[in-house]
Amino acid sequence: MFLRNCWYVAGWSYDIAVDSVLSRTMLGEPVVLYRKADGGVVALEDRCCHRLAPLSRGRIEGDDLRCMYHGLKFAPSGKCVEVPGQDLIPPTAMVRSYPVVEQDCWVWLWMGDPALADPALIPAALGHGDADWFMQTGQLAYEANYELINDNLLDLTHLSYVHEKTLGRNSMSWGESRPKITPIERGLRIARWVVDNPAPGYLDLAPGTRTDMWASYDYMVAGVFLLATQSFPPGTAAACGMQAPSAEPLWRSMTSQAVTPITEHQTIYYYSGCLPKSYVTEENSRQQLVVFEKAFAEDNAMIEAQQRVIDGTAQPAMLGTSSDNALNQFRRLMAGLIEAERPHRLSAAE
Amino acid sequence: MFLRNCWYVAGWSYDIAVDSVLSRTMLGEPVVLYRKADGGVVALEDRCCHRLAPLSRGRIEGDDLRCMYHGLKFAPSGKCVEVPGQDLIPPTAMVRSYPVVEQDCWVWLWMGDPALADPALIPAALGHGDADWFMQTGQLAYEANYELINDNLLDLTHLSYVHEKTLGRNSMSWGESRPKITPIERGLRIARWVVDNPAPGYLDLAPGTRTDMWASYDYMVAGVFLLATQSFPPGTAAACGMQAPSAEPLWRSMTSQAVTPITEHQTIYYYSGCLPKSYVTEENSRQQLVVFEKAFAEDNAMIEAQQRVIDGTAQPAMLGTSSDNALNQFRRLMAGLIEAERPHRLSAAE
Amino acid sequence: MFLRNCWYVAGWSYDIAVDSVLSRTMLGEPVVLYRKADGGVVALEDRCCHRLAPLSRGRIEGDDLRCMYHGLKFAPSGKCVEVPGQDLIPPTAMVRSYPVVEQDCWVWLWMGDPALADPALIPAALGHGDADWFMQTGQLAYEANYELINDNLLDLTHLSYVHEKTLGRNSMSWGESRPKITPIERGLRIARWVVDNPAPGYLDLAPGTRTDMWASYDYMVAGVFLLATQSFPPGTAAACGMQAPSAEPLWRSMTSQAVTPITEHQTIYYYSGCLPKSYVTEENSRQQLVVFEKAFAEDNAMIEAQQRVIDGTAQPAMLGTSSDNALNQFRRLMAGLIEAERPHRLSAAE
Repeated sequence: MFLRNCWYVAGWSYDIAVDSVLSRTMLGEPVVLYRKADGGVVALEDRCCHRLAPLSRGRIEGDDLRCMYHGLKFAPSGKCVEVPGQDLIPPTAMVRSYPVVEQDCWVWLWMGDPALADPALIPAALGHGDADWFMQTGQLAYEANYELINDNLLDLTHLSYVHEKTLGRNSMSWGESRPKITPIERGLRIARWVVDNPAPGYLDLAPGTRTDMWASYDYMVAGVFLLATQSFPPGTAAACGMQAPSAEPLWRSMTSQAVTPITEHQTIYYYSGCLPKSYVTEENSRQQLVVFEKAFAEDNAMIEAQQRVIDGTAQPAMLGTSSDNALNQFRRLMAGLIEAERPHRLSAAE
Repeated sequence: MFLRNCWYVAGWSYDIAVDSVLSRTMLGEPVVLYRKADGGVVALEDRCCHRLAPLSRGRIEGDDLRCMYHGLKFAPSGKCVEVPGQDLIPPTAMVRSYPVVEQDCWVWLWMGDPALADPALIPAALGHGDADWFMQTGQLAYEANYELINDNLLDLTHLSYVHEKTLGRNSMSWGESRPKITPIERGLRIARWVVDNPAPGYLDLAPGTRTDMWASYDYMVAGVFLLATQSFPPGTAAACGMQAPSAEPLWRSMTSQAVTPITEHQTIYYYSGCLPKSYVTEENSRQQLVVFEKAFAEDNAMIEAQQRVIDGTAQPAMLGTSSDNALNQFRRLMAGLIEAERPHRLSAAE
Repeated sequence: MFLRNCWYVAGWSYDIAVDSVLSRTMLGEPVVLYRKADGGVVALEDRCCHRLAPLSRGRIEGDDLRCMYHGLKFAPSGKCVEVPGQDLIPPTAMVRSYPVVEQDCWVWLWMGDPALADPALIPAALGHGDADWFMQTGQLAYEANYELINDNLLDLTHLSYVHEKTLGRNSMSWGESRPKITPIERGLRIARWVVDNPAPGYLDLAPGTRTDMWASYDYMVAGVFLLATQSFPPGTAAACGMQAPSAEPLWRSMTSQAVTPITEHQTIYYYSGCLPKSYVTEENSRQQLVVFEKAFAEDNAMIEAQQRVIDGTAQPAMLGTSSDNALNQFRRLMAGLIEAERPHRLSAAE
C-alpha cells in the first residue's frame, strides 16, 4: 500500500543529464524522465500505449519523446502527437504525465491526482545547494519494503547497536535515551539531547572530545528525514534543563534523506550530508560521507535481513517497546492518509 | 496457451550430434532428442516414468535410451524395454514419443496428437541446404512469450526504429509503408515494395546505392517467417504499378526464421540468412549474418523490455494502429486454431 | 510437510565455534546457534520478538544473545532479559528455544514439542569420534525436497547407474540385487549381499580384487542413514546361504548420513566415512572421502534435475518397480508419523 497524493524524490538533479533518458520504477509504476530544450524535467509513464514498449528505450526529439519500437511520438503532456504511416491519431493515444518539481537538487514527482499536486507540500531539504555548506550526496537500493526503512529512521536507538562503531561511536547515548515527539503537519518532530557523546572522528578534534548534542529532525510523509544537530560542550544539556538550546553551538550538521518506494519489495534511499564551510574543511565533509556510506550499508544489511525474516514468517507479529513510539505514530499517520485516498463508499446513512 | 497440433523447430540438424543427448523444453514439455544407429532422430518425453528423472541424463544404447537413475531402458517408441532386477515390465511403463521430421536442416517435432502429424504441414524453409546459396545460421533465446516475437515479425514498420542503424539503414521506407496482406493456408502472405531503399552495406556496392526492393513473406503457424526479397533499380516499383515484379532482380535474398515456445515466458528463435552464390561472395554472406546478429539482439532487448512492462502492468491494454493489421489477423488465426483444439463440449442442441 | 517431533542434525560440532553465531534454517524455521561459556550449545528462534530482525546478526554476551538492531537481550531459555532504555520487560517478550543435544560430533535439534524431546530417540552415528577409526566428514546443500534424498538412499540400485564409475565400480551387483527389508523402531533395516563386487580403488589392493560384501543399514526417521559393510572373499555369500555373516571380515567400513530439510525446496545433507585404523592408512581414508564427494555430487546433480522435472510436471505420478519397496515403506512410515502430529479432531462418535 502506497500513499499516492504525495511528492516523492525521483532522483538527484544530476541524475537526469541533458539528452539522456532515465527509467525509474516508483510506487510500482514505470516512469521515464528526460529534460526539455529549456532544461525542464518531463516525467511520463514508461509504457507506450501502442504495444507497451518502454519509452525509456526511446529518443528525445525537441521537447517530445519518440517510442523506438514503432515510432509513436509523445509530447510532455503525455499526448501522442505522431503515429508514423497514418494521419489520424486516436484521441485516446496518450500516456500518463506526472507533475514534476525540481527543488533543492532533488527531482520531485507527484504520484497521485495531478489536480492535487501542490508544490507547497514539498519538504524543504536542509542545506541543499547552500553556498555556505559543503554537501555530499549518495543513494542506496534496498530489497525491502519502504516502511521498514521509515521504522529505522524513526527509532534512532538503533545507532548504538547497528551503528555501534560508526554513527553510534561506541556509546549508549542513543540507545538509552528517548526523544520528545511532536506531531506536525504531515509529519512528526523528534528531538532529544544526546548527552556526553563522543565527537565524530572526521572532524579532526582532539582525541576524546565529547559534546552534548541537540538532535532534532522532522520526519515527513511518505518518508523524508530532515535532521539538524547542534553540538555544545558537555553540561549544556543539563544547563538547558534538557530543553532546546538557544545559544550558538560549537558546530552544526545537517542531513536530508528521502525514502522512495520502487515496489512493495524494493526501495531507493537518497541522502545528503551537509557541514558548514565556516567550521570544517572539504576533506572533513568527504570523511563524513565515508562514515555515512559505511553506516547506511549497516542499515541496509540489517533491514534486508529483517525483511527476509518477515517474508519467511507466516503471521509476523511485532512486540512493542517504548522506543517504537515515533514509528507507531508515523505508521498510523500514513495509514490514515492512505485510507483517505480509497474510493469513497456509501456511508451507512445513505 | 499453445497450439499443439503443429510442427515446431526443435533445433538445427547439427545440434543433435551422434552419441549425444540433447534436452529441450518445448511448449512447457521436457523433450530429449538423440540419434539412432541409422542417424534418425528420436524425440522422447524427458521424464522417466519411474521416478521422473530426466532421460537426458541417460545413456544411448543402440537405438534405445537408458535412464541413468535406476536403469530403466526405453525404445524409440517410448516403450520401456528393460527394468533392471525384475522380469516383468508393466505395460504402462512408457514415456511419450514425439513424431520427428528432419527437413531443410531443421529438426521438426509435432507437439500434438501423433495421429494428426502430417509432414505436408511443415513449412518449406527457403534456400536451406541449397548448393546455389550461401547459408548462415543462428539462434537466440528470449525471456518473453512467443506471441510478442510473432507480433514483431508481423509488423516490419519496426525496422525503421528498432533497427534504425542495422536493417533499417536510416530510412523511413519500412516505417511509413504498409504491406498487402493475404490470408493463405495456416498463415498470411505479406508483401510490399520498399521504395528507394539504401542497399545493404555488406554487399560491397558503390556508396549510396539505392534500390526498390520487393519484400514478400509468408508467416505460418505457429511462428515461421519465410522472407524472400528482390532488389531492382529505383523506379521499378512505380513502373510495376506497385504490383509484384516479374522481371529478374539485381539480386535476391532469403531468410527463414522459426519461433518455438519454451514456456509461456521463454522462447527460442532460429534463423538463417541465404544469399545467391551467383551474386555474392561467402564473405558478403558472413557479413549479412553479422548484421542479423546485431539486429536480432536489438529485437531481443526491445521485446524482453516490453515483456517486463507487460508483466508489471495489472491490466495491460494495447491501443491499435494501422500497422497492427497483420499481427491482429495472425493472433485471430492462432486463437481460432487453439480454440479448435480444446476438448469438445456438448453443443446447445444436444 | 515435515515431521516435527524428531531430532535433526543442525551441523557438525565444529560448525559452532566459540564466540561465533551460526544461522540455520531448519524445517522452514530460522534458528540461531551459539555456545554458552561452558561450551553448551544454545538454539534459539532466529527472529527477535521486537521487530523480527535476525538474532544471528547479534552479539553473544556471556550465556545470552543480544539483538543488534535495538538491543534486546535473550537468555538461553529464549526469555528476553533486557530492553535498553526501559525497565519493564513484557512477559511475552521471548523467542522460541529448541532442545539441543551434542552427540557423536553432531548437533541435534528437536524441532517439535520440547516436552517430548527424548534424547534416547537420537540415532547413534557409526564410528563418530571413535579412536579406532579414521573419520572423514562432509556436507552438501540440495535444491530439492528431502523426500527425494530419502528415496535415493533407500534404493541403492542407483549405485550401478548414477555412480557407475564411483561407488558402483562398473558393476551391476547393486543394480540387479534386491535387499531384505525389516521394519525396526522408527525406521527400516535394509541388508543384502553384494556378490563378487570389485574392491574399492582407495584401499591399495591388488588390481582386480573382488569381494562378497555384506551391506546392512538402518534408515531412521526423518532421514538418517547408518551403513556398515563387511567385505569377505568371493564365495562367502553363497557359503552363508545368503544370510548375515558371522565370521570376521577382511575389512569393515561405516558411514553415517543425515538429511535435514531446510525448506520444502532445499535440504542439507551431512555425511561421514569411517574406516578402521587397524586395516587402512589415513591416506586411504582421505581417498575414500574423495570418492564420496564425487559420488554425492552425482546424486546431487541427478536429484536436483529430478526435482526440476517434478516442479515442471502438472500432475507428477511415479510408476512402481520392485526396487521401490523400501522407499515406499519409509514414505508410509513418515506419512503416518506426520499425520499423528496433526491437531486432534473430534471423532465421528463424539
